[in-house]
Amino acid sequence: MQNIIDQFNIYVDLAIEAQELIRGTADREVEGVVEDVKELENIKINTITITNQMASQTMGKPVGTYVTIESPPLKINDPYVKEEIIQAMGESMNKLTTGRLQAGDTVLLVGLGNWRATADSLGPKFIQYSPITRHYHQYAPQALVEGMRPTCGIAPGVLGITGLETFEVVKGIVNNINPAMLVVVDALAAQNVNRIGSTIQMSNTGIQPGAGVGNARHSLTEEDLGIPVIAIGCPTIVSAAIIADQAIRKFCLKTGAMYDEVKSMATIKDILSFYGGGLGVTPKEIDEIIENSARIIAMGVATSLFPGISQEQLELYAV
Amino acid sequence: MQNIIDQFNIYVDLAIEAQELIRGTADREVEGVVEDVKELENIKINTITITNQMASQTMGKPVGTYVTIESPPLKINDPYVKEEIIQAMGESMNKLTTGRLQAGDTVLLVGLGNWRATADSLGPKFIQYSPITRHYHQYAPQALVEGMRPTCGIAPGVLGITGLETFEVVKGIVNNINPAMLVVVDALAAQNVNRIGSTIQMSNTGIQPGAGVGNARHSLTEEDLGIPVIAIGCPTIVSAAIIADQAIRKFCLKTGAMYDEVKSMATIKDILSFYGGGLGVTPKEIDEIIENSARIIAMGVATSLFPGISQEQLELYAV
Amino acid sequence: MQNIIDQFNIYVDLAIEAQELIRGTADREVEGVVEDVKELENIKINTITITNQMASQTMGKPVGTYVTIESPPLKINDPYVKEEIIQAMGESMNKLTTGRLQAGDTVLLVGLGNWRATADSLGPKFIQYSPITRHYHQYAPQALVEGMRPTCGIAPGVLGITGLETFEVVKGIVNNINPAMLVVVDALAAQNVNRIGSTIQMSNTGIQPGAGVGNARHSLTEEDLGIPVIAIGCPTIVSAAIIADQAIRKFCLKTGAMYDEVKSMATIKDILSFYGGGLGVTPKEIDEIIENSARIIAMGVATSLFPGISQEQLELYAV
Amino acid sequence: MQNIIDQFNIYVDLAIEAQELIRGTADREVEGVVEDVKELENIKINTITITNQMASQTMGKPVGTYVTIESPPLKINDPYVKEEIIQAMGESMNKLTTGRLQAGDTVLLVGLGNWRATADSLGPKFIQYSPITRHYHQYAPQALVEGMRPTCGIAPGVLGITGLETFEVVKGIVNNINPAMLVVVDALAAQNVNRIGSTIQMSNTGIQPGAGVGNARHSLTEEDLGIPVIAIGCPTIVSAAIIADQAIRKFCLKTGAMYDEVKSMATIKDILSFYGGGLGVTPKEIDEIIENSARIIAMGVATSLFPGISQEQLELYAV
Repeated sequence: MQNIIDQFNIYVDLAIEAQELIRGTADREVEGVVEDVKELENIKINTITITNQMASQTMGKPVGTYVTIESPPLKINDPYVKEEIIQAMGESMNKLTTGRLQAGDTVLLVGLGNWRATADSLGPKFIQYSPITRHYHQYAPQALVEGMRPTCGIAPGVLGITGLETFEVVKGIVNNINPAMLVVVDALAAQNVNRIGSTIQMSNTGIQPGAGVGNARHSLTEEDLGIPVIAIGCPTIVSAAIIADQAIRKFCLKTGAMYDEVKSMATIKDILSFYGGGLGVTPKEIDEIIENSARIIAMGVATSLFPGISQEQLELYAV
Repeated sequence: MQNIIDQFNIYVDLAIEAQELIRGTADREVEGVVEDVKELENIKINTITITNQMASQTMGKPVGTYVTIESPPLKINDPYVKEEIIQAMGESMNKLTTGRLQAGDTVLLVGLGNWRATADSLGPKFIQYSPITRHYHQYAPQALVEGMRPTCGIAPGVLGITGLETFEVVKGIVNNINPAMLVVVDALAAQNVNRIGSTIQMSNTGIQPGAGVGNARHSLTEEDLGIPVIAIGCPTIVSAAIIADQAIRKFCLKTGAMYDEVKSMATIKDILSFYGGGLGVTPKEIDEIIENSARIIAMGVATSLFPGISQEQLELYAV
Repeated sequence: MQNIIDQFNIYVDLAIEAQELIRGTADREVEGVVEDVKELENIKINTITITNQMASQTMGKPVGTYVTIESPPLKINDPYVKEEIIQAMGESMNKLTTGRLQAGDTVLLVGLGNWRATADSLGPKFIQYSPITRHYHQYAPQALVEGMRPTCGIAPGVLGITGLETFEVVKGIVNNINPAMLVVVDALAAQNVNRIGSTIQMSNTGIQPGAGVGNARHSLTEEDLGIPVIAIGCPTIVSAAIIADQAIRKFCLKTGAMYDEVKSMATIKDILSFYGGGLGVTPKEIDEIIENSARIIAMGVATSLFPGISQEQLELYAV
Repeated sequence: MQNIIDQFNIYVDLAIEAQELIRGTADREVEGVVEDVKELENIKINTITITNQMASQTMGKPVGTYVTIESPPLKINDPYVKEEIIQAMGESMNKLTTGRLQAGDTVLLVGLGNWRATADSLGPKFIQYSPITRHYHQYAPQALVEGMRPTCGIAPGVLGITGLETFEVVKGIVNNINPAMLVVVDALAAQNVNRIGSTIQMSNTGIQPGAGVGNARHSLTEEDLGIPVIAIGCPTIVSAAIIADQAIRKFCLKTGAMYDEVKSMATIKDILSFYGGGLGVTPKEIDEIIENSARIIAMGVATSLFPGISQEQLELYAV
C-alpha cells in the first residue's frame, strides 16, 4: 500500500492508521512507539507516543504524542456521546499542554482548509464555533467572565484561493501578537471510510507539510513558529485510489487471486483518469458530519482553555 | 455490473451509460434505440432515441429522446467551450420542445437537490442563475424586453430537509399557475469519473423515481403532471461502489484473474461498511464544477426560452 | 403618522404598535379591543384580542388574538431569557391552537422571506432550525420518538426571486398534503428600533397582504387556505421614513416648533430620494439577532407541537 | 453636522463629502485642496488632491489624491455603465500607482469587513472576484499568461470575530511576503443615501483608523506598512443618526423653524435609543449592490494590475 500512497501523493494523517499500516506489513509492535488504550462508555481513547527518531522514521510522523478519540460511527450527533467526546478532548488537551500553557496566556486558534469546499471546511467552522475573547481584554474587559484567557482565531484559507502559504499568514500573526500556543484544526484524509465522522486526532506535534485534505505544503510546527502547536483533526474523506486498491486487495484475499501492486496501480490510474489523486470519497451526510465535528472540537478545546466556565457561557463568546 | 447497481441502489442516470452497459454485456446495438452522433469543434453531441417499450425495458429508461453533450473534461470553464455548449444546449432545447411550447407560454423551472450539499446543489444553483420574469408580466411589464415569456422557478429542497416529496410541491405549483412546460435540473450520478464536469444530458422524458444524486423517490413526468417535462442533468458524483467494482474488474482483466461478481460485492460491502451506497466519489474541484455547470445550463436553457435576447441582457433577470 | 405610513407603503405589522398609534392620536382605549398584560421575571407578555369588525377596521388588523412577547433589548442570546421566551411561546402556541389541533395532526411550517437578504431571512432560518418529521412517518417510523406528530417545512422564497406568489406555492402544498394547521414565520417591520431583537408577535390571524419586511402581496389566511394559520414574526427593521418622521416630530416637541405633516413628508422624500420606502434601518448586530430569534422561535413552536420531548432531542430532527 | 458626526462616532469616509460638508459651512473653496471634474458618457470622475497639512486638517483626511467615480444611482448593473466604470477605475489606478509599481511586482489585495454582515462584505467579496496568481508563479508558471504579475489576497475578518486587529494580520503578511503594494477594499459609510451603489472612491492614502462600515480601529498606511497603499471603497450604508439629523435640518429649512443642534442630537439619541450609532440605513437591494460593486471593483483593479489581458481571461484566475 505504501506505493499506492506515494504514487497518488496520499499522506497518512492519522498516527493510528500509520501504525496499522506498519503492523500490517511487519506484523509486530514498532520499537519506540508506546500505545495506551482506554475504553469509556461510548468512546475509546488511544494514545500513541512516538519516543525517538527511529520510530518517527518508521511511522512517517514526528516524535510526539497522538491522542485518538474513536466514537461509534455516525454517533457524533448523539447528545450523550457528544458530551463524552467533549470531556475526553478537554482532558486530552490538558495533558498535551501541561507545563506549556499558563492561566492568562494568549492562544491563537487556526482553522485550516477551504470554507467553500464542504469536506475541507472543518477548520474554518471550528473558528466560527470557538469562543474568541482577546478583543474584550483590550476594549471591554467587563464583558469577560473572571479568569478567561485571551483567544483569537483565523481561517487563513488555502493557497489556491489566497495565493498565500498558510505559514506566511500564521507566522506573521504569531510575530505580531506573540501567543503562548497555537491550536490548529484541519480536515484529514483517512484510509478507512468508517473513520469519517467517528475519529478525532489530537497531537502536540503541529502540522507537517503534505498533511490534510487540502494537501497543502504548509508546515506549522514548534520548530518553525517557536511556540507549542496542538494539532487537531477529523477524517472527512478517503482517497478514491485507496478505496480502489483496498477493493482489489480484499478481492484477491477472498478469491485467492494473486495481488500485484504494479498492476493495481495501473488499474487505479485507468479508472481515476485525469482526476488522479484528486478524487475523494465522502458520505452523503458530510455537511452534517462537518458541522457536528466542528462544534464538538470547538467545545472540547474551549473546555480546556477556559476551565470552570460552562459550555452555555462559552457559546456566547463564539460569533 | 447490473447486480452491483441493484445491490447498492444505484440508478443509471445517463442514457449514454445505460447503452454502454448493455453493449458491454450484449456486444450489440439495442433494437428500438436510434443513436446519432455529431462532432463540433470542442464538443460532441450524442442523441439517443428510445422508440418503443421493449427498448425502454432493455435500457431501463422511458421512451423518449436523450441528448448528451460531451466536452473535454475540466474544460467547462473555458470561455470558447462554454459558448459552444450554450449554443448546443439552446438548439437541443429547441428540438426537444418543438410543437410543445409557443411564444408567450409560461415555463416553470425546477431545481432539484439539496443546496447545502455541494455535489447535490446543481439544481438550486440553476434556478439562481436563470432569468425569472413572470412577476414583471404582472407588476412591471415595462421592465421586460419585448417578447420575453413568463418564467418562474423553484428549488423545492429534498425530502430529508423539508419532509415534503418533490412531487407534492411541484404538482401544487403546476395546478396553481398552469405552466405550459417544466424544465427540471438535477445533479446526476455517473459510472465514470471522466463524466463529472464534462457531460450534460437533456431529455424530454421528465424525471423518473430513483434518479439523481439525492436518490429521492420523486417522479416528475408528463404522465403525472399533464405538461411536457424537459429534464436536464450533469453527473457530479460516481458511487464509490462502482469505482471499487471497476477496480476489481480491470485488475482481473490486467492480471488474468477470474472476476467473481458475488465476491466483488462482498468485498465492496466490507470496505464501504455501514455507509454502503451512500459514499460518493467527487473531485476536489466539485464546487467550481457545479458553479460553472449551473451557469452554463441556465444560459443554455434561457437561450432557447428567450430567443433573440443577448446573454448579457438575460443575466439582468437572474437574481 | 398614518399619512407617512400610507405614503411610503409601510404596513404596521405589530398589533401592539397599531394600538399605540391609535392611542396616540385618540388618547383612548379602542372599543372591541381587549388587552391583557403579564409580567414574568425577564419578559412581558401582552395579549391583544380584536373582538369585532369595527375594532378590526380601527386597528387595521383582522379579528383575532395577538400575543406579543417582549424581552429586554439585545438580551435575546442570554440563556435564561432565551429559556423563558421559549416557554412563553410554547404556552401561547397552546392557547392559540386549542381545539384546532389534535395529537398526530400534520403541521406545515412556512418560512417567508428572502434567505439572501439578512434582515428578511428569519423565515427561512426558522425552517432550518425546526424539527421536520413527516418523512420519518412514512419511511423510518422507528427513528421517531413515540407520539411525535408529522411536521414538514418550506421556505418558498420571494416573488422577485421565484416569480411565484407565496400563496401559489403554499396553496398547492396544502392541497396536496392536507395539513391540519399552518405555522408561518416572517420578519416584520417595526415603528421603533427598540423592538428589533426584543419582540415576538404570535397570532391566530394568518398573514395579511402587505405585511412583512419583503412587503409582498401574499395572503395566507384560514379564509383562503381552509385551515388555521398561526403567524409568528419578529421586527428586524424600521423604515428609514419612519425614523426621519419621528426625528422631526420629537424635535418639534423639544423645541416647540410646529410639526407639519405635509412638509415632513416632502422632507423625507427629498432625503430618501429614489430609494424611497425601500430604505430600512437595521442594527449592526442584525445577523446575530436573526440567528438567535430563528432558533428561539423554532424551539418555542416545537415545544408546543411536540409536548414532552426535550429540546435536545428536538434539535436532532432539525437539519 | 460635525457635532452629530462626532457624537455618534461617524467617520466621513468620502473625501467628496468631507469637502461638501466644509463648503456647506464655510461656503468657500478649501485652500490647499485641488479639484478636477471630468464627465464621461454615463459617469463623472472627480479628483480631489489634498496638497498640504493644513488642508488635511481642514478636510479631516490625509494628504493625497482621492478619485471619486460617480454613476447614476442603481445603474451599477447596466452592462454599458459597468464597462465605463471598469475602464475609469483602471485608468485611475494607473495614475495613482504611477512610479510606485513595476511590471512583475507582487501586489497584496486586502478585503476588509465582515463576510457575514451583508453591508460590510464588500471587501471579502472583492477578494473572491479578483484574479489571484502568486501561487502559479511558484508551482505552475505554465498556467499563467505571459507577463502576469503575482497577486495574492486576504480577507482578514473583523476584530469582533477574530480577536485580531486587521493591522496585526496584514503587517505580518507584508513582512513575510514583501509585496510592492497593497490594494485595500472596504465598505464605506456615506452622508447621502444616493451614494449607495453609485459611488466608488479610490485614493493613494491608505486606510485611516475609524474609517469604514465596521468602524474598526485599524490603520493601513504607507507610513505603518512601508509600501504604497491604494484604498478603494463604496458607500453601502448611511448612519441612521445622519438621516434623522438631515430630516430635522431640511424640515427647519422648509418650515422656517430654527434648527438647534443640541436638541437635534438629544432627539436622535431618544429615537435610536440603546442601538445609538450602530444603526445603519441600507436599501433593500443591498445584496445585489454589494455583489455588483465587488465584481466591478475587482475588474477595475485587475485591468490596471494586468494590462493587456482580457476580462474573460482574468476571471479564470478568480476562484
